[in-house]
Amino acid sequence: MPRYKIVLEYDGGGFVGWQRQRNGPSVQEAVERAILGFSGERATVYGAGRTDAGVHALGQVAHFDLASERHPSVIEGAVNHHLRPAPIVVLAAERVSDDFHARLRARARVYLYRIVNRRAAPALDRGRAWHVPHPLDAGAMHDAAQALVGRHDFTAFRAAPCQARSPVKTLDVLDVELDGSEIRITARARSFLHHQVRNMVGTLKLVGEGKWSKADVARALESRKRAAAGPTAPAAGLYLKEVLY
Amino acid sequence: MPRYKIVLEYDGGGFVGWQRQRNGPSVQEAVERAILGFSGERATVYGAGRTDAGVHALGQVAHFDLASERHPSVIEGAVNHHLRPAPIVVLAAERVSDDFHARLRARARVYLYRIVNRRAAPALDRGRAWHVPHPLDAGAMHDAAQALVGRHDFTAFRAAPCQARSPVKTLDVLDVELDGSEIRITARARSFLHHQVRNMVGTLKLVGEGKWSKADVARALESRKRAAAGPTAPAAGLYLKEVLY
Repeated sequence: MPRYKIVLEYDGGGFVGWQRQRNGPSVQEAVERAILGFSGERATVYGAGRTDAGVHALGQVAHFDLASERHPSVIEGAVNHHLRPAPIVVLAAERVSDDFHARLRARARVYLYRIVNRRAAPALDRGRAWHVPHPLDAGAMHDAAQALVGRHDFTAFRAAPCQARSPVKTLDVLDVELDGSEIRITARARSFLHHQVRNMVGTLKLVGEGKWSKADVARALESRKRAAAGPTAPAAGLYLKEVLY
Repeated sequence: MPRYKIVLEYDGGGFVGWQRQRNGPSVQEAVERAILGFSGERATVYGAGRTDAGVHALGQVAHFDLASERHPSVIEGAVNHHLRPAPIVVLAAERVSDDFHARLRARARVYLYRIVNRRAAPALDRGRAWHVPHPLDAGAMHDAAQALVGRHDFTAFRAAPCQARSPVKTLDVLDVELDGSEIRITARARSFLHHQVRNMVGTLKLVGEGKWSKADVARALESRKRAAAGPTAPAAGLYLKEVLY
């Protein structure tokens, strides 16, 4: 059966997350329904990142198999047509070999986390960023973030229901940049533990507030205790930006 | 009576525009109601730009008078509190002299127009940008835009109901920049005619498509006939970015 890779952008606000669940609409289900709508086939769609409820995607990658051969541009157009009016779009579609797997073959995942750092709540970015009204020191946050880069046991930043076999991950990049009143945090790794990015962001916020030092972040990491690290940052600020193969 | 200046961000999507109207909720009315809510006073709020229905603001400026003296930070906090849950926020408030006037004293207005230029419709920027699915040449658009910069009779870019006394305006800046799949157009002038920015953008799109040349844009301008210029670009892509005094 021919296999197809698609790149997706979505607003995660109205979804229970990527993965099909009984308690509400998922992105996966919406895409599967759109594929059924145009092809009549019940395909299973595998996503590279199982984004949580409220988490957005600028470049989620997924794959699925169809019984019949279709031109990728037909897939792109037809899935987009059937996705409407859901806030999910296919940015690109391509025919891939049978051994491609969106999740298992991913070499790196890039997440973006957006903090609106000003007194007033966002009007235009409501549900699209974490609003932190008191000033954060983005430079100190970036410096402290470097204590997390590298190969570590990230148990201190791992959500309880995480299904990963090992808590040891290699974090390639954790950059904190200031852009006007917005703080943008970029995280890149082959894979992440459940809530790892949001837990790292919640911890870096403590540094930005001057409550924690870089050494405190390093100690939290070494403790391997979730309670020793900062709180989980809200889902609304997180974007799965890119998946590399 | 003490006069206050406020800077506002809003999502214009759900409003009939800045100005109070009978046919639906306006931004002006929402702000006036919030002021009434915290102060008990029926103030009239004067905005620098009368944004149309669906047009957003990153930095609209307005002023109003109150009978009593209040600290600007109290105004900011209280108006924001009473504005909720409307997608309007006060970014800053300040006490100004009696001769300040948000509209009449403005030295320059800066508008931003966003075009999402890719096949797929925006999922995250729905209602926040104009979706043009076929490729536009942003470089050609920028070059042609320069034919409009300067002091001209902009009748060809003026909406029929425009109330400006003269169609002669000085356009200081009209820049077209490409940023990934987004085209950002920045327009700066002391003041604009009704729909001027959207009519210029609709005309530049014809250049981006290769249908019009820079000379065609210059000819449309010289014609002083609305029918000779391009169509009006949608409201959703337009942002009142900044007002300078």
